[in-house]
Amino acid sequence: MKAMASGNIKITQIFVATFCIVYCMTGCNGVRYDPNWDSLDKRPNPAWYDESKIGIFLHWGVFSVPSLLSEWFWMQWQGEKDPRAVKYMTDNYKPDFTYPDFAKDFDADLFDPDEWADIFNASGAKYVVLTSKHHEGYTNWPSKYSFSWNSMDVGPHRDLVGDLANSIRKKTNIHFGLYHSLFEWFNPIYLQDKANKFQTNDFVTGKTMPELYELVNAYKPDVIWSDGDWEAPDTYWNSSNFVAWLYNDSPVKDSVVTNDRWGQGVGCKHGGFLTCSDRYNPGVLQKRKWENAMTIDKQSWGYRRDATLSDMLTMEDLLATLASTISCGGNMLINVGPTKSGRIIPIFEERLRSLGDWLNVNGEAIYGTIPWTHQNDTVTPNVWYTSKKNAVGDLDVYAILLSWPDPGTFMLGAPTDTRSTLITLLGYPGYLSYTGGAGIGIEIPAIPINKMPCKYAWVLKLEHVL
Amino acid sequence: MKAMASGNIKITQIFVATFCIVYCMTGCNGVRYDPNWDSLDKRPNPAWYDESKIGIFLHWGVFSVPSLLSEWFWMQWQGEKDPRAVKYMTDNYKPDFTYPDFAKDFDADLFDPDEWADIFNASGAKYVVLTSKHHEGYTNWPSKYSFSWNSMDVGPHRDLVGDLANSIRKKTNIHFGLYHSLFEWFNPIYLQDKANKFQTNDFVTGKTMPELYELVNAYKPDVIWSDGDWEAPDTYWNSSNFVAWLYNDSPVKDSVVTNDRWGQGVGCKHGGFLTCSDRYNPGVLQKRKWENAMTIDKQSWGYRRDATLSDMLTMEDLLATLASTISCGGNMLINVGPTKSGRIIPIFEERLRSLGDWLNVNGEAIYGTIPWTHQNDTVTPNVWYTSKKNAVGDLDVYAILLSWPDPGTFMLGAPTDTRSTLITLLGYPGYLSYTGGAGIGIEIPAIPINKMPCKYAWVLKLEHVL
Amino acid sequence: MKAMASGNIKITQIFVATFCIVYCMTGCNGVRYDPNWDSLDKRPNPAWYDESKIGIFLHWGVFSVPSLLSEWFWMQWQGEKDPRAVKYMTDNYKPDFTYPDFAKDFDADLFDPDEWADIFNASGAKYVVLTSKHHEGYTNWPSKYSFSWNSMDVGPHRDLVGDLANSIRKKTNIHFGLYHSLFEWFNPIYLQDKANKFQTNDFVTGKTMPELYELVNAYKPDVIWSDGDWEAPDTYWNSSNFVAWLYNDSPVKDSVVTNDRWGQGVGCKHGGFLTCSDRYNPGVLQKRKWENAMTIDKQSWGYRRDATLSDMLTMEDLLATLASTISCGGNMLINVGPTKSGRIIPIFEERLRSLGDWLNVNGEAIYGTIPWTHQNDTVTPNVWYTSKKNAVGDLDVYAILLSWPDPGTFMLGAPTDTRSTLITLLGYPGYLSYTGGAGIGIEIPAIPINKMPCKYAWVLKLEHVL
Amino acid sequence: MKAMASGNIKITQIFVATFCIVYCMTGCNGVRYDPNWDSLDKRPNPAWYDESKIGIFLHWGVFSVPSLLSEWFWMQWQGEKDPRAVKYMTDNYKPDFTYPDFAKDFDADLFDPDEWADIFNASGAKYVVLTSKHHEGYTNWPSKYSFSWNSMDVGPHRDLVGDLANSIRKKTNIHFGLYHSLFEWFNPIYLQDKANKFQTNDFVTGKTMPELYELVNAYKPDVIWSDGDWEAPDTYWNSSNFVAWLYNDSPVKDSVVTNDRWGQGVGCKHGGFLTCSDRYNPGVLQKRKWENAMTIDKQSWGYRRDATLSDMLTMEDLLATLASTISCGGNMLINVGPTKSGRIIPIFEERLRSLGDWLNVNGEAIYGTIPWTHQNDTVTPNVWYTSKKNAVGDLDVYAILLSWPDPGTFMLGAPTDTRSTLITLLGYPGYLSYTGGAGIGIEIPAIPINKMPCKYAWVLKLEHVL
Repeated sequence: MKAMASGNIKITQIFVATFCIVYCMTGCNGVRYDPNWDSLDKRPNPAWYDESKIGIFLHWGVFSVPSLLSEWFWMQWQGEKDPRAVKYMTDNYKPDFTYPDFAKDFDADLFDPDEWADIFNASGAKYVVLTSKHHEGYTNWPSKYSFSWNSMDVGPHRDLVGDLANSIRKKTNIHFGLYHSLFEWFNPIYLQDKANKFQTNDFVTGKTMPELYELVNAYKPDVIWSDGDWEAPDTYWNSSNFVAWLYNDSPVKDSVVTNDRWGQGVGCKHGGFLTCSDRYNPGVLQKRKWENAMTIDKQSWGYRRDATLSDMLTMEDLLATLASTISCGGNMLINVGPTKSGRIIPIFEERLRSLGDWLNVNGEAIYGTIPWTHQNDTVTPNVWYTSKKNAVGDLDVYAILLSWPDPGTFMLGAPTDTRSTLITLLGYPGYLSYTGGAGIGIEIPAIPINKMPCKYAWVLKLEHVL
Repeated sequence: MKAMASGNIKITQIFVATFCIVYCMTGCNGVRYDPNWDSLDKRPNPAWYDESKIGIFLHWGVFSVPSLLSEWFWMQWQGEKDPRAVKYMTDNYKPDFTYPDFAKDFDADLFDPDEWADIFNASGAKYVVLTSKHHEGYTNWPSKYSFSWNSMDVGPHRDLVGDLANSIRKKTNIHFGLYHSLFEWFNPIYLQDKANKFQTNDFVTGKTMPELYELVNAYKPDVIWSDGDWEAPDTYWNSSNFVAWLYNDSPVKDSVVTNDRWGQGVGCKHGGFLTCSDRYNPGVLQKRKWENAMTIDKQSWGYRRDATLSDMLTMEDLLATLASTISCGGNMLINVGPTKSGRIIPIFEERLRSLGDWLNVNGEAIYGTIPWTHQNDTVTPNVWYTSKKNAVGDLDVYAILLSWPDPGTFMLGAPTDTRSTLITLLGYPGYLSYTGGAGIGIEIPAIPINKMPCKYAWVLKLEHVL
Repeated sequence: MKAMASGNIKITQIFVATFCIVYCMTGCNGVRYDPNWDSLDKRPNPAWYDESKIGIFLHWGVFSVPSLLSEWFWMQWQGEKDPRAVKYMTDNYKPDFTYPDFAKDFDADLFDPDEWADIFNASGAKYVVLTSKHHEGYTNWPSKYSFSWNSMDVGPHRDLVGDLANSIRKKTNIHFGLYHSLFEWFNPIYLQDKANKFQTNDFVTGKTMPELYELVNAYKPDVIWSDGDWEAPDTYWNSSNFVAWLYNDSPVKDSVVTNDRWGQGVGCKHGGFLTCSDRYNPGVLQKRKWENAMTIDKQSWGYRRDATLSDMLTMEDLLATLASTISCGGNMLINVGPTKSGRIIPIFEERLRSLGDWLNVNGEAIYGTIPWTHQNDTVTPNVWYTSKKNAVGDLDVYAILLSWPDPGTFMLGAPTDTRSTLITLLGYPGYLSYTGGAGIGIEIPAIPINKMPCKYAWVLKLEHVL
Repeated sequence: MKAMASGNIKITQIFVATFCIVYCMTGCNGVRYDPNWDSLDKRPNPAWYDESKIGIFLHWGVFSVPSLLSEWFWMQWQGEKDPRAVKYMTDNYKPDFTYPDFAKDFDADLFDPDEWADIFNASGAKYVVLTSKHHEGYTNWPSKYSFSWNSMDVGPHRDLVGDLANSIRKKTNIHFGLYHSLFEWFNPIYLQDKANKFQTNDFVTGKTMPELYELVNAYKPDVIWSDGDWEAPDTYWNSSNFVAWLYNDSPVKDSVVTNDRWGQGVGCKHGGFLTCSDRYNPGVLQKRKWENAMTIDKQSWGYRRDATLSDMLTMEDLLATLASTISCGGNMLINVGPTKSGRIIPIFEERLRSLGDWLNVNGEAIYGTIPWTHQNDTVTPNVWYTSKKNAVGDLDVYAILLSWPDPGTFMLGAPTDTRSTLITLLGYPGYLSYTGGAGIGIEIPAIPINKMPCKYAWVLKLEHVL
């Protein structure tokens, strides 16, 4: 039968996968995963991911043109009829202006991916995740499956995904990852499947899955950050098949990590790392690896032209989030929205570079750490712990202090003095005096402001504690 | 297998068709056609088509924005690198401007389909064929299969096909038809199939066929004017299946006609009526029904902003083409290209209304006629014959004179006087004198210019001739 | 006093003129004219103007961008609030769109002045008058006095006036002239003068007069076609001073003609030739030289994208206007509005070339003629007379017949047979028979349509009549 | 003579001024100033200006659209042919794009002047100076003298000057001022005067002066910050006449201050306050009141989309500039460039609000102060002095420390202990110990970082010193 023989890419690959599974069952070296979550959940994340702790998230797309409210502008304007969006459009555009009409102004005329790479590297982040396609459906790469609705055909007229991947890899050791939305708000094929109560899946077979394969094969991302899954079950999305291919046979099978947004009911349960909800930060230790995807602009993932200073996390806010996230076993994925011109605005650059400055002093309390027995201190608030095996196999404990202590003795209730305990303030010379026992009282020195190791959030390193 | 169960629309419809064929073989009323050309060629065209003789062809799309060279502008610019197109774009657009960027300016701001209907009606045409989608792939209706590359999402922000269909049907008795291009020059899925030497057909199953079914079901056109078939065989296009559905089960199965451009090698051989090449006008009687698709602007199907008067067919040209076409058994499909604003420019309107004026006098020599035994006269050049059964079953013969005779006796060699022969000049009172025999010598009266029935091309009606 | 010493151009030139007048009173060769209408009216128009009979008028400007309603679009939209203009703008533009915003789309991207010259030449016109500046104030040349509101700064980015002047002069013998609007609807300096009841004239001294001098010095036009004068008296406009300079000292003092629109109360009374109102065509002989400025599009001087065939004068209309105008001593200035792209649309080109074809046959009845003693015939309607001195000094009379006579004897009541009268049909061989006396009865031959000298309006030439 | 009677505004006003001078010589209350610098320099600046110390400078205009290189973009692109500007335009715009074409995109769609007022107020600035017109000639108010090249006709379609003036006055006690450029790079009337070696002054009489009078009468600014004077002498600009009117008769004669950029050779010598060169900061006490006009973006006055963090002054930089400027008798005018949309970007907002935070603690060392006998300290670098009469008439001295001292005794060499000297750290409780004499050794307390009064630049207040 001709139609079957020619097939579509998904069907072909299912066959290939089936063949390989059989083959491997009878003798191949590596472990292979079946396209079900029980099997897929058994795959350990590649070590680099947990060690990295900090990534940069980038929301960039046609929504960067109106650049108002959020990256959900299309839905807010024409789906939800948010009065602010409706008024803005009424006031500033001709009556029949459509969202796709915005695309021509997504010009990326000042996009310098080398400069982005430099900023991200300076921030201390170890991976980057770029929106390859958000819910609007516009692809930031010249996808075969998005004719005339992609960054080569309309707008920037360049391959944004490819250009950033190249710069990141050429200039840094940062891992390159991609966000991808399974659904598209207004794609009529998706809406048809949805109207069919997801009993058809023309959208998945013709659009979502082909482009995911295309993305992975073309750009070899180390992260696939899936999203837009929540309206339909994973059986509709056929996502376990894709993840099995990703783990078993894709060109990034050894390095790739993925998240948990692969279908209704899958999130926060299955997948490579759990993201649960946006800005997920449980405050207590989690059993599985998770990630706190959060934003410097508190209101939006996409760049908003009218964001004000008060919308921005302060460095204190950012470090408080970092400390609690890392302490509880998460990674932090810090989002900044580039402008339509392709710029990281200075306030974002300042936050990222300040984070890098802080990590230059305190990075050993973050990178490669593991959660300690305690996350918070039992006595003093605003203290978060991490720990790390040192060279001789002992565990060093790091207490991250979000506020500078008042003069006098500073009490930590969680650690127990071992008599050989050594306490340092990272970035400051010498050992601190303390009185020990169950709980430790540390003498905080009177350090002049110009001698402080950093401006916000300080780390006490405790060696030889229990 | 899920992917097969959900299927795609084409597969589903093949199954349905197969089922029906079986069913009809065992008892349905009408004739059914198999999806092969031997069978499909047996279907007679609905009578309206041959009787109509004259249609209006409309090429309208994103190419109406640059509106230069021709509707092939995209290919001329970026495929063929025609120096005129390249220079125009270099001189007038920013360096990375793309063809899809034109779409936003396809505004149709002055499109009044009622006015079009009025002009077409006044022209005497009996059917209209609008480009629903040309080779650029942009659809003039909100196709589910052309997200963001259609007239609702970008450009006019309205359903051009639907709006014209409604006006034509509301205001006139003209049949509404649609042109559709099977291939799309730059669609990457098509290009992939082509690179695969048409051994895959993802483009056909995912794009071309779904949108053809969608078109027919939504707009119920009486003509499907297929094009863009020549690079691949009909087995790739799966076109015989579609035509079988069109004839057997579509909502227009009783009224629809289609042409012959359904795959490499099919044109000029199979289908409902033969169009062979553009502006096909063989000059001799054809065995099968055919159509001369031609243009008033000699250079282009799409509107060209720089077309000059010398590019336009004169009324003499147009009537010469009409006479030869109808005489030899063809229909004439007269193309005018609307502007991006949605206007039929006055020179086109003048040609169309003048044609209508001419047909008001001479229409009986055109509509519902059948070719006569002779097409040309054997003695006098520039005379074309048509014929028609009159009320009593005799054949009336019409001689269309492209030039007005010089004073004196005008010889027609083809007809034979029957002694009861009656000769009239359509639109002029009384009978003309003649001398008969084999061949007829007609006395041409000295008619003052202000008494002539029309300005160009006159019809002699000969009753009771052989 | 500094301000006086530096002066402005007008003051300087007044002084110069005053000096010259004094000088000439005491001995210069040529006649000089004082800056008052009594004196200025004494200047004879250069002979070329009356002999030319036919000119082409071109309305081109920013109004060619909306290209709706008329060249008064700005006033219709924002002054008069014409509901059609308001609705169009509301439907198609963002709420705060302004008329000056249109200018960027006045691109003239297909403007080929050589092609215009060729069309105008083929039309038989002997002069061309282009709007250098209409009431919108936008100048079609890079005026020093219209910074950022001229065709070099915004829109075409070229000198439209200069480019056309060069082509006309290089390719033809046509005289080049310029239309210029004294007032500008929305110029705030003008509005201030107007609010001051024209007791201030900052607009005239700073804008209108400097740009008129600039125009004449730069482009040396043979026609200054003034307009926009009606709201203020000539004393406000200081127009008699300008005309005096034009006649006495300008670089075109020997060849230039001007019209009568130089101030409230001046029109139809003073100036070089009288235009009175638009489409002025009195139907009776006038004492002074006058001009019928009229339009092929009956509704508008500027190009309208939605003009239909029924808006266009037919050739019969056009020739009827020509005949009556020339017969009564007028010139005819035929207006066509180019598109924003710089095209003369084919329907205009057809009218102009058809006019040229007609003039190729009948031009001797038009060019260089003088009104005859009769303008209409006393017996037969639709006949207009012109006359011309022939080589031996006799007067030949031309009777322009707007309708072709019915067969038989055609009566002309105005001419009197001199027994040696010779009557010909221009473009047709031989003399016509007649019966004479007071009034002449001419035998109209039965000419077949293909032998007629032209399609519409025929000229009988009568030699040796009284 | 008519032209003189109607006059132009400048001449009229000269006459009025002359009349008033005579009148005042014989009996009016106030002092009047003659239109020469000797006289004008005698006018004391209104007290508010010196007391204010800090203003906000805003460069906003069409240059905010390309928003690259600087507010001189037009000149850099088309005058200097800066390769960066040329390349950007070549890469991103059609070949004949002009600078005026940018104006339509100056949309100010997110301009909220109330929000600006709030930020400026929070910064501690006491006056604001907005570019009413920069060298490009585009006016940010609907000037009668800039038809179609102003913010009402093209671009924002609103009165930017008026809207900001209203908000500033409604929401704050900040003084509102206006920058104005005398010359315009590409205004052809200016270029003509220039080509005439400034022996004509049509530009001044027709454009610059009328719009300055219009500005002052319409918006009543408390600062006229003149610029663009350097190519021509003040006799060309007629600027002393304008300043005399401003001081004698304008609606702001009692409150207005102006600067020194009124003609070649005038700058840094005459006028209300001296600005000398951009970012003028002499580092030593000046005899006359002066102003340091400087920018937070070190590279540009206009907003640059590609400005990076390293281009921005840090708070340390900003406070160092403030301290040295105020210490030496200057005011500091801090420039931020709003975006084309009308936003103050967050990095600017952060600098301004941080400055306000600092002034909340340390403002008494700035506002209303007078230079002390020393500006720098004689012993310790990075210390700047100000002083102020206290309630009992003594002089309090403020030492601004740009660096925090190392622990121990901190030596100030300039002040002399009077035995009753009291030393405080602004924002910190209690008196500091010291050892006095000629020079004072102050004991710097060990203040924990979280108890410091501010993050950068600290002020020691010394009462009862010599």
